[in-house]
Amino acid sequence: MTGKGLEGVVAATTALSLVDGTAGRLLYRGYAIGDLAAHATFEETAYLLWYGRLPNASELAHLRAQMAGQRALPQRVIQIIQQHNKHAEPMDVLRTAVSALGSTGDFAAPPTVEQAISLTARVPIILATFQRHRLGQPLIASRDDLGHVANYLYLLSGAEPTFSQVRALDAYLILTSDHGMNASTFTARVIASTLSDLVSSITGAIGALKGPLHGGAPAKVAEMLEAIGTREQAEPWLRHELEQDHRIMGFGHRVYKTDDPRSLALRKLAGELSTEQDAEWLALAHHVEDVTLRLLEEYKPGHKIYTNVEFYAAAVLRGVGLPKDFYTPTFAASRTAGWTAHVLEQISDNRLIRPAAEYVGPFDLAYPALAVRAS
Amino acid sequence: MTGKGLEGVVAATTALSLVDGTAGRLLYRGYAIGDLAAHATFEETAYLLWYGRLPNASELAHLRAQMAGQRALPQRVIQIIQQHNKHAEPMDVLRTAVSALGSTGDFAAPPTVEQAISLTARVPIILATFQRHRLGQPLIASRDDLGHVANYLYLLSGAEPTFSQVRALDAYLILTSDHGMNASTFTARVIASTLSDLVSSITGAIGALKGPLHGGAPAKVAEMLEAIGTREQAEPWLRHELEQDHRIMGFGHRVYKTDDPRSLALRKLAGELSTEQDAEWLALAHHVEDVTLRLLEEYKPGHKIYTNVEFYAAAVLRGVGLPKDFYTPTFAASRTAGWTAHVLEQISDNRLIRPAAEYVGPFDLAYPALAVRAS
Repeated sequence: MTGKGLEGVVAATTALSLVDGTAGRLLYRGYAIGDLAAHATFEETAYLLWYGRLPNASELAHLRAQMAGQRALPQRVIQIIQQHNKHAEPMDVLRTAVSALGSTGDFAAPPTVEQAISLTARVPIILATFQRHRLGQPLIASRDDLGHVANYLYLLSGAEPTFSQVRALDAYLILTSDHGMNASTFTARVIASTLSDLVSSITGAIGALKGPLHGGAPAKVAEMLEAIGTREQAEPWLRHELEQDHRIMGFGHRVYKTDDPRSLALRKLAGELSTEQDAEWLALAHHVEDVTLRLLEEYKPGHKIYTNVEFYAAAVLRGVGLPKDFYTPTFAASRTAGWTAHVLEQISDNRLIRPAAEYVGPFDLAYPALAVRAS
Repeated sequence: MTGKGLEGVVAATTALSLVDGTAGRLLYRGYAIGDLAAHATFEETAYLLWYGRLPNASELAHLRAQMAGQRALPQRVIQIIQQHNKHAEPMDVLRTAVSALGSTGDFAAPPTVEQAISLTARVPIILATFQRHRLGQPLIASRDDLGHVANYLYLLSGAEPTFSQVRALDAYLILTSDHGMNASTFTARVIASTLSDLVSSITGAIGALKGPLHGGAPAKVAEMLEAIGTREQAEPWLRHELEQDHRIMGFGHRVYKTDDPRSLALRKLAGELSTEQDAEWLALAHHVEDVTLRLLEEYKPGHKIYTNVEFYAAAVLRGVGLPKDFYTPTFAASRTAGWTAHVLEQISDNRLIRPAAEYVGPFDLAYPALAVRAS
């Protein structure tokens, strides 16, 4: 009997990313994610994930043009997005809209890298279309001269984003675009292993990422910081939570037993990003981090709980102006690169993923006719 | 390193179904599926899966009323179904429509048995709505006096089905409503393990069932029988396929190394169902089965390949008048009972399902600036 949760069970080999929780190391196809976040763009990183190597200048230009060319959504999908109630959860809208792309004929099985590119290009467009809809604002056309990240911010706000906003969100997308065999990526690979189509895999992955045990916490970090409000209130607020054995949002990870390399990179970026108006909020975040780490050592000595990727993700995503309920959907936008790369890797050497179950129910019961059952 | 596909790895305990591939035995919560198919209805079987015991008469009446009360789809979901091109794949339409139910507010996490009942009641309605749409026929209102299966057939055809049609499809739904830890059920449980909502789990499961290695073959059996055409052509046609090492549709199963108990039950039902016009087609199916089993012994001696559930499923589903591309979606309609029961079982004692991956890519590559990469 394997432990529940398949912890430590190797479900597949992958050349996509190495998650070394003990050393606090994360590599995409051999490259440290800190280097990629500092120097690359999201498109470059996605190319690396899909093709297995970094692009040269003309390959990167070609990919950017390809992605820009895929931004227009089919009219039917726009309608489906706009039929949603304005209070609908963006993750629900995204799951339905991505699924709806599957019946346009462009995503017939088997999955291809062209489909991966198209789907990755379109996820932010779906999100921006819903954002404009719920704000009652008209749809804006994408700008071909803007890259993937800049165009997303442009469609959301209607204004051209600043350089540091684009750079920060680009880095966030790079840092979160793949992470080994997490629950949503595993979902995508299980679905792909049946030889289903790419849209089915990504729709399933979005549903898994929606779960609070997986992708649901970055917004909760922002809510926590808002609830704390001021530096003075941080320690009493956090002590109160820890006394009640509540989990502090943005701390601890099932895999990392040291600093999460993504949170270190995001911490740095959050600092660069902060405008005057954000400086106070960022100072609050730093203070809350310091106090939490100190109190965790006091309340849970030896547990080695560190700041996770969600803590500073909240700072960065708030800094670029995203609404809180767009944090997890934007995570989905970045992870679509990793999910699609995993699907392509899965089917390149496929075996149906079908584990066993241990039956713990009764045996050989006699079927009693309905008439004789106790009422 | 575990073998690819997690074969034999226990991913969860379950009290829902025992799949004993060596003995050719399938139990739902202790009851042999042959007994259930012979005596129970789909609603009764679904109750057994959800609640862990058979219902008494008033409990069953209550469940039937509950399911009948959930049949009306939200207008927005009907619109989404009707926006589809008439050539859309029914599994794509089903995946999108189920996902769209998730933003109606009735399916907020955590999953409940009431949600399971509602979703199971609605899957056939979604399918029938699309069938009427693509035929250009007006929607028909459900009839409260008809059970789950009879109402489905009524909505599809507009005519009240015969007793033997209802009985045959009821038995098919009973026989296919659960089957241990198959790929789609596992998908549903992985998604549920993130504490996501029920609709996300079932949407993912539908995407997995769409894959031809899982749920995609029953239509291919019917196509094969049509391609063979006559009893005389069976042996040369099958020999030709086996010489080319092609797989014969409807034979062989990863788990069953003896007769699949579901195919035995369906074989019997297909015989009862056959009208005069179907008798010839059924005789062809019997003949193809006999010849295939004989030839498999000749071409693949010792492989122990038996008729699987899909072979006679094709006979039954054709017999009740379903279009071929509705075979897998109707399988989804029955399996929704099992999927939802597995989701409820998963969250009753949850642990995030997150296996490991073995990294086989390069290490510690230096990031070269774009300008210096070879073009």
